[in-house]
Amino acid sequence: MLELGRHFDGWAPARDGEDLVVATIVATSGSTPRPAGTSMLVAAGGGILGSLSGGCVEGAVVAAAQEILSCGGARRERFGYSAEDAFAVGLTCGGELEIHLSRLSEPERKALASAPVALLRRLDDDGAPAVTLAAPSSVAGIAREAWVGLLGLEGAPEPVQEELLARARTQVEPLLRQGRSGLVRVAPPEGCHDGEAGTRPLELFVESRLPAPRAVVVGANDFSEALLPVLKLLGFHVTLCDARPGFAAQARFAPADSVERTWPHRYLERQAGEGLLDERSVLFVLSHDPKFDVPLLLTALRLDLAYVGALGSRRSDRQRRASLVEQGLEPGLLDRLHSPIGLDLGAVTPAEVAVSIAAELVGVLHGAPGTAGSLSRGSGPLHHGPPH
Amino acid sequence: MLELGRHFDGWAPARDGEDLVVATIVATSGSTPRPAGTSMLVAAGGGILGSLSGGCVEGAVVAAAQEILSCGGARRERFGYSAEDAFAVGLTCGGELEIHLSRLSEPERKALASAPVALLRRLDDDGAPAVTLAAPSSVAGIAREAWVGLLGLEGAPEPVQEELLARARTQVEPLLRQGRSGLVRVAPPEGCHDGEAGTRPLELFVESRLPAPRAVVVGANDFSEALLPVLKLLGFHVTLCDARPGFAAQARFAPADSVERTWPHRYLERQAGEGLLDERSVLFVLSHDPKFDVPLLLTALRLDLAYVGALGSRRSDRQRRASLVEQGLEPGLLDRLHSPIGLDLGAVTPAEVAVSIAAELVGVLHGAPGTAGSLSRGSGPLHHGPPH
Repeated sequence: MLELGRHFDGWAPARDGEDLVVATIVATSGSTPRPAGTSMLVAAGGGILGSLSGGCVEGAVVAAAQEILSCGGARRERFGYSAEDAFAVGLTCGGELEIHLSRLSEPERKALASAPVALLRRLDDDGAPAVTLAAPSSVAGIAREAWVGLLGLEGAPEPVQEELLARARTQVEPLLRQGRSGLVRVAPPEGCHDGEAGTRPLELFVESRLPAPRAVVVGANDFSEALLPVLKLLGFHVTLCDARPGFAAQARFAPADSVERTWPHRYLERQAGEGLLDERSVLFVLSHDPKFDVPLLLTALRLDLAYVGALGSRRSDRQRRASLVEQGLEPGLLDRLHSPIGLDLGAVTPAEVAVSIAAELVGVLHGAPGTAGSLSRGSGPLHHGPPH
Repeated sequence: MLELGRHFDGWAPARDGEDLVVATIVATSGSTPRPAGTSMLVAAGGGILGSLSGGCVEGAVVAAAQEILSCGGARRERFGYSAEDAFAVGLTCGGELEIHLSRLSEPERKALASAPVALLRRLDDDGAPAVTLAAPSSVAGIAREAWVGLLGLEGAPEPVQEELLARARTQVEPLLRQGRSGLVRVAPPEGCHDGEAGTRPLELFVESRLPAPRAVVVGANDFSEALLPVLKLLGFHVTLCDARPGFAAQARFAPADSVERTWPHRYLERQAGEGLLDERSVLFVLSHDPKFDVPLLLTALRLDLAYVGALGSRRSDRQRRASLVEQGLEPGLLDRLHSPIGLDLGAVTPAEVAVSIAAELVGVLHGAPGTAGSLSRGSGPLHHGPPH
């Protein structure tokens, strides 16, 4: 439910303190539209925040949530072809969803409002305090007391605490490191089978995401104006850079997270030197002027960025590539350059060009081949692999 | 400069009444990034609104504008390889631009602030009142007195007025009807060559656009939330339609121009019946539920829309196509359906799916083939034809 964090505070039922049920996809199989961790909130007054499937199971989930609001309890529901009610809920995506529903506890409510980058909560114990992480994620960021509270280990013997904590840390760490979400079952230590409750594994649901990847857009013009909101939509932290006085200060570039009035190649060198660019960072050279583009690309193509694209005609592309080699760029590194930038969609307006650039970017990030056919013309799988 | 209308009122130099110069592309040849009509405003205080070329000529244009602000006058400047200063201004896109610069007159300022769909102004006479049209464009919407003022015909003999008006109407009409922009030269009537000034044709610059095309998005979920702002960016008037109570009312769908809580197929039938859908309209079926999708597509595929796409797995796509034929759809009409929707980019998140849908849409609107390669892998022209 991390994706709901940015909307939660502004949502009227949350502001008004209504009773809320959170429905979370805890497991998926086959082709499903949304990954584990995706959540929807249902308010006692009928309000809804988020969605789970693009529409096909929401009706049934809302009905189940209303039952919980009236009668209490928590539920785990399975939606898919194998379930008898599959047709009734309309899950035609051919996959299966496992959805956990429970009242949103006070600790979870607080956690959500803090818009964390990671959230750990117990699915089998509503009362346990949820744990949040606000900084880049690692189990090292979770205090021992937070683990003890989350796992309900207050009063347990020290060796039992240690063993369970170690197990939980080991299982949670890879999810946090990769920014993924999933269900983690922590088995109780051997010899702790005292009574029925003690034999069941603890159920933790871990949600995490990596910090927003960096996008640097060079050139303050109509193309960058159109590209900025699309990059924000895709989850990037966006910097607009333009050396010319007056241009970058325009209000239409306000969607950028930061605006830099400096020579682009100096900015990139400085950012790289400070370790602020990595293999998830992307660069769009829209400045359309060799005196900015060439020194910038000379720097950028030597970094290991996820994507480097440059705007320009075929003619300026040829000249730019020649200048780069003349100025000493290792010719093999030219293969990293997406120029002319974008997919061949016949785009004309700045908005269309922005879509063509964003589409090329998404394909590159997912390792799609350089040619993207309409899905309706092919027969392959719709989802290639995990998101970036 | 129509594209500046929506920004003009909020722009500080306009609010503060600063002296402004408007630079407008009045003609282009070869490959240029922006079409005729594109304008940039330069304020006496150094502020800038809009851009002409993605960066390569702006510096020189700002310098020319500052001269006009200091010394008065109007200028026509040519930027491109054939001009001696081509390298200096960095126009590497391989095309040529003709740019008219003049002080933004009081009538033009008023016209711009009214955010019109069409604007006619004299390039050779700053004092002539600009003419604006706010409704779907035709010369029939321009009053006789407006023509007389624009063409400076006050006091001219009636037959001369009539002849010039007829010539101007004939030349302007096709531009308005197609929502295009361009320079129109109106030759004076035969026998009116009294003095040097009388022999020169009048220069009108016509800018016009068609009303925003309609986009109907069906299904209130994360995918439509992500798609809405991209469609707005592409210039569509967007309606979100969802029959289920509660879903469409969420604040995250506020970017839609209108929200309809009704059965989608009934909404589409009603809109079509009222003549509110046309061959520029597009439909996105993201509801992911056959009980909404099938009756909706049965209606939609029989209309002559520019694009109809539907979300779903390959399995639900096969079932949906079978249901449509079962329920009487002419099998040939299935070719109009883009399903599974989008380009094959490996998109996973709702934002990525929205980009893949928008990219397919742009390609279809521009008649690009069903497969879009990265421009960097091909060798063809970057701009296929006129925008939709």
